[in-house]
Amino acid sequence: MKTSGTLLLPLFAPRGIAVVGASHDPTKLGYGLARNVVQSNYQGVVHFVNPKGGSLWGRPIYSDVTQVPDPVDLAILLIPAPAVKEVLVDCGERGIPAVIIGSGGFRETGPDGAKLEQECLQIAQHYSMRLVGPNCIGFLDTHLPLDATFLSPPGPTPGDVAFISHSGAICAAVIDWARGQGFGLSRLVSLGNQVDVNETDVLKPVAADPFTRVITLYLEGVSNGRRFIQEASRITQEKPIIALKVGRFASGRRAVSSHTGALAGQESAFNAAFHKAGVIRAETSEEMFDWARSLAWCPPPEGRSVAVLTNAGGPGVTASDALETHGLKMAELQENTQEALRRLLPPAASLHNPVDMLASASPEQYAACLRILLEDPGIQSVLVILPPPPMFTAGAVARAIIPVIHAAVKPVVVALMGERLIQEAVEHFRAAHVPEYRFPERAASALAVLAQRAEYLTRISASQAISTQVILPNINPQGVKEILVKQQKSVLSQESLQRILEAYGIPVPPQALARSPKEAVDLAQRFGYPVALKVVSPDISHKSDVGGVLISLSDEQAVLHGFDTVMENARTTSKVANITGMQVQKMIPPGQDVIVGVVQDLQFGPLVMFGSGGVEVEELKDVSFALAPLNLEEVEYMLESTWAGRKLHGYRNLPPADRQAVIDILLRFSRLTADFPELVEIEINPLRVLPEGKGAWALDVRGRLV
Amino acid sequence: MKTSGTLLLPLFAPRGIAVVGASHDPTKLGYGLARNVVQSNYQGVVHFVNPKGGSLWGRPIYSDVTQVPDPVDLAILLIPAPAVKEVLVDCGERGIPAVIIGSGGFRETGPDGAKLEQECLQIAQHYSMRLVGPNCIGFLDTHLPLDATFLSPPGPTPGDVAFISHSGAICAAVIDWARGQGFGLSRLVSLGNQVDVNETDVLKPVAADPFTRVITLYLEGVSNGRRFIQEASRITQEKPIIALKVGRFASGRRAVSSHTGALAGQESAFNAAFHKAGVIRAETSEEMFDWARSLAWCPPPEGRSVAVLTNAGGPGVTASDALETHGLKMAELQENTQEALRRLLPPAASLHNPVDMLASASPEQYAACLRILLEDPGIQSVLVILPPPPMFTAGAVARAIIPVIHAAVKPVVVALMGERLIQEAVEHFRAAHVPEYRFPERAASALAVLAQRAEYLTRISASQAISTQVILPNINPQGVKEILVKQQKSVLSQESLQRILEAYGIPVPPQALARSPKEAVDLAQRFGYPVALKVVSPDISHKSDVGGVLISLSDEQAVLHGFDTVMENARTTSKVANITGMQVQKMIPPGQDVIVGVVQDLQFGPLVMFGSGGVEVEELKDVSFALAPLNLEEVEYMLESTWAGRKLHGYRNLPPADRQAVIDILLRFSRLTADFPELVEIEINPLRVLPEGKGAWALDVRGRLV
Repeated sequence: MKTSGTLLLPLFAPRGIAVVGASHDPTKLGYGLARNVVQSNYQGVVHFVNPKGGSLWGRPIYSDVTQVPDPVDLAILLIPAPAVKEVLVDCGERGIPAVIIGSGGFRETGPDGAKLEQECLQIAQHYSMRLVGPNCIGFLDTHLPLDATFLSPPGPTPGDVAFISHSGAICAAVIDWARGQGFGLSRLVSLGNQVDVNETDVLKPVAADPFTRVITLYLEGVSNGRRFIQEASRITQEKPIIALKVGRFASGRRAVSSHTGALAGQESAFNAAFHKAGVIRAETSEEMFDWARSLAWCPPPEGRSVAVLTNAGGPGVTASDALETHGLKMAELQENTQEALRRLLPPAASLHNPVDMLASASPEQYAACLRILLEDPGIQSVLVILPPPPMFTAGAVARAIIPVIHAAVKPVVVALMGERLIQEAVEHFRAAHVPEYRFPERAASALAVLAQRAEYLTRISASQAISTQVILPNINPQGVKEILVKQQKSVLSQESLQRILEAYGIPVPPQALARSPKEAVDLAQRFGYPVALKVVSPDISHKSDVGGVLISLSDEQAVLHGFDTVMENARTTSKVANITGMQVQKMIPPGQDVIVGVVQDLQFGPLVMFGSGGVEVEELKDVSFALAPLNLEEVEYMLESTWAGRKLHGYRNLPPADRQAVIDILLRFSRLTADFPELVEIEINPLRVLPEGKGAWALDVRGRLV
Repeated sequence: MKTSGTLLLPLFAPRGIAVVGASHDPTKLGYGLARNVVQSNYQGVVHFVNPKGGSLWGRPIYSDVTQVPDPVDLAILLIPAPAVKEVLVDCGERGIPAVIIGSGGFRETGPDGAKLEQECLQIAQHYSMRLVGPNCIGFLDTHLPLDATFLSPPGPTPGDVAFISHSGAICAAVIDWARGQGFGLSRLVSLGNQVDVNETDVLKPVAADPFTRVITLYLEGVSNGRRFIQEASRITQEKPIIALKVGRFASGRRAVSSHTGALAGQESAFNAAFHKAGVIRAETSEEMFDWARSLAWCPPPEGRSVAVLTNAGGPGVTASDALETHGLKMAELQENTQEALRRLLPPAASLHNPVDMLASASPEQYAACLRILLEDPGIQSVLVILPPPPMFTAGAVARAIIPVIHAAVKPVVVALMGERLIQEAVEHFRAAHVPEYRFPERAASALAVLAQRAEYLTRISASQAISTQVILPNINPQGVKEILVKQQKSVLSQESLQRILEAYGIPVPPQALARSPKEAVDLAQRFGYPVALKVVSPDISHKSDVGGVLISLSDEQAVLHGFDTVMENARTTSKVANITGMQVQKMIPPGQDVIVGVVQDLQFGPLVMFGSGGVEVEELKDVSFALAPLNLEEVEYMLESTWAGRKLHGYRNLPPADRQAVIDILLRFSRLTADFPELVEIEINPLRVLPEGKGAWALDVRGRLV
């Protein structure tokens, strides 16, 4: 049923609307809805429906939906939950393609409500209707225009930020709050219980709106992780998406049997998913909308070098701190930039970055200095700081610099400091779509997100030019299938796991069973010395405890002697007769030990972890995550965002390790787990990485099936 | 000259003021100053001074300060810089004890200005006058009242937050901005160039103000680190101090020769100083004042368990996330709490935490549920979320819950969501001194800081009850003095460093020079096997390169044989004859390796570092800092805030290490560096910590003198 967004067109551009539950009574939500639809200046036809009949604002109230004349593309229901099913059938019979159920009283109230909700879905599916809600605030589009919510007026200012939300209360708050923050909304969708239409379904039609420049999401989860990534990735190539994902600490812990499982919470999966899809994750509501404004109104910067223009020292220092905290760089001004500034400013002004024009700075100086900074090729964006200049008004400065900002191809944001004394300036900037923030810290964060977005656009255009598809030779899915099909238990044996890795071309130390000292020597010579010997017996589980393991045997003599020693130890200590033979295993020289693991995330599928290995993985937390299947860019990102990965380049007296081998193994491992989702957890720890050109070996592996 | 704050009394409670530079001309700052002093309803006597004479607002303008009648405790100068010296002399002759120089044109303009500033200081010192400024906005007290700034009206609302600032522009912005944020100021001091009075001088008199409940600081540095800590520690026992310290990335890197030096930036020192003094560090301006309100208006919570009361699910989830992010806990509601809530709320309401009363929640329900939550002994603070309830006004809810909040002994903060629809509620809460924030995230952060403050108060009252002074036996400063006095070079030799550590009772592996195989065996027997042998020769610097080192010699035979081998290796490989003998060193068994280091911070003195040792210290960054001399609480804090320290308790198959030995060594090390500030850098890496009861050994140490 849930297919492409085009089926949602009737919802987003209805030719006619039926308001079911329209009411005369101003205390009823149905009154508010009818009022909003009419007052929002909607250009289509509006029909009211209420079994009581009558008329409202000179329009007839039809007693049921079947009587409503054409055209009706959308019905909005605000009626008691028990009445919804019957009205849905009427809508279906009437051929209405989209229905918003605003009413509560469904899944959120318990099992009976959940059952009712499912019955509604069945009716909708029977008639191929799409349902939004139930238990939602509805939908609005400030440009169509249409306000199909029941909220108290005034509705939002028209703007370019779209908001899609799992919470109705937050929709109501954001509509009201946005007005005070000086930005407008384009489209807003409240999704409610999502019995049918979910956050992913509406992404594409919302993004298709030409007035929408940024999409903001309040998410309590996603309905289908893979589909979300797919849809979002397409959209972020054109328009930025910012998500506030909550419910961080909500989910119970799964049973896990690996370090990867312990570290890979739902949040790592969401972060990896957002990274893959180019979705920007905000940590707070205010941050999301701070960023939305700069993303909607500023061009992308060409890099991270920022100039700060101020009329006072303190705010300038605060700004530099904040910029560096957010990973931006203070630009170095070119000589001729400084020369040009010097001609304009008093001798005590600071011509370095931050450029401090001093408290006497006039609107004309603000404008001229800003123009000079924007011409410096080493400056990629500018943060203008505006505490009210003592001798001028902030409003006059705003009027002077807005034309300069509009003429620029580089982003400029403004930190306005104060309240009453800056009010006029605030209004000028908002009207001119120049992002303004209180204090420099939030302005710095808004510039940083512009740089992040610009880098993402560069990265995806590069990866479209050069295909990052990697051909991995020597992959044998059939081999893995054969191993897995025979498994009886959830926990896989070391031997099975090693064979699985080998089938995907991941090196494990060569090893084989020797039944005699002679065979052991032959194997050792084949693998190369040194080797280890481990007793193999169905009756011995803890080999070391019975003296059943010898390591670092470096020649024929040692292997011959060792075979007998281990055999005797095992016989005398464990008192068993049933000894199959001796595992001969090549010993791998020292190197850099890392961990590579995967867990299958319920939402997003295989989530790959890379980082510092050993037993302290969970405490060091030097790990990064990405969703399989990995591409080369993602592997690079994983490596470079951990110390374990950066160290592979070499560090002090540690020689460079075989980084290429790690990349190859990560790609193979990712492919393996994508091919076999029944491998719910699998972890190589340690993966020993030898010096450059010498490869990497999976020294230990653990894993389990569903 | 710079002594206690009592000398500043004339500044903070002047009986009479001379405004020097008072002007008729509204475009002059001297006009603004005269206006503010008069209009602020100051109860003392105000005199105007200007060489031009005349009168202003019916008061005479004296042509110079000497003519001003009694009483005059404070002169405020807003005159051109070149005229300041002469007026200062007049002030001195007139016996005026305190002067604010608002004028610019001093150090901030270059060397000539700096010279002028110093000359002003000399005049002030000659007359025992205290100087505030120059280049500052001045001072105000909303309760005295007195506005001695030249800023445009309106001045700040009276309130309970004091603000001390190194930046005048930020003062101006904060005065204006505070009004819009709904909090008032008590005292504000703009410090300017601080030629005399600095941030530490004004701490005590500002804190002494009975109207001041919280002190906020905008700092670009501190003038004397140790004195700042001393003064601030005394004040934070009574009133909270919040500091925004900027200039984080400003300072150039010092030359360093240790890991400690590389990691111990100015910021680590400031963080350690703030920790020691109980000063709360804010990261942004908004955060500082968000916190100031909750600290000024709320009682301290008894713990970190918080209940969330909401009328909608989404904001509740957002709040839980934010609370957990800030280290608070979602309280578990007691059975009878849930029962009481059940009786009040509709069946679909959520009786778990967050308590979701649903959108129908009335003002009475808000009040009753809040009262129930506050009675639950497991709940230590409450976050009330208030998106405008669809059927009621937020203002009505505010009116209903304010009496409940006022009656409570537990802190309650409110997250109001929206703008126009919540305006009335905002005003009610502000008037009632209930901290309110937009969106739950900032409210959660304000609750977290209350918990932090409460924990600090508990900690200091505990440490006052039980003296944390530790007696360290076997400390021999004389021994260290003798070693240091002989040093020619900055870099200390391994041997000197080991003797220094030994003098302070820090174990180093026993070692001594053997001139013959026999002596080597005697030493080995005395130290205990195994031992290492290292050739000693003035001509050999890289011992290993010439085969001059043998390790793990575990019996007499090995030592005798080893002595000859090393001797021969050294002779043949290095071709030198001058071999003093052989260093015999006890070998320390494996253990947990940590790093302990100190650098002398220019501001704060010895800054001790503890953490994960080895060569990757700077990359792992698993370190913590504290300022010497350390007390036991600080040592515990250092250990527990690093993985290296937590691991000492044991981890998986790693046995517990001798944590007591580490604590003892940290205390001794801290004492050493406090006693000998000329040791500018000293670092033990690794300090090997053996299993419980077996001690810890400084395996390697490096250090240098000034």
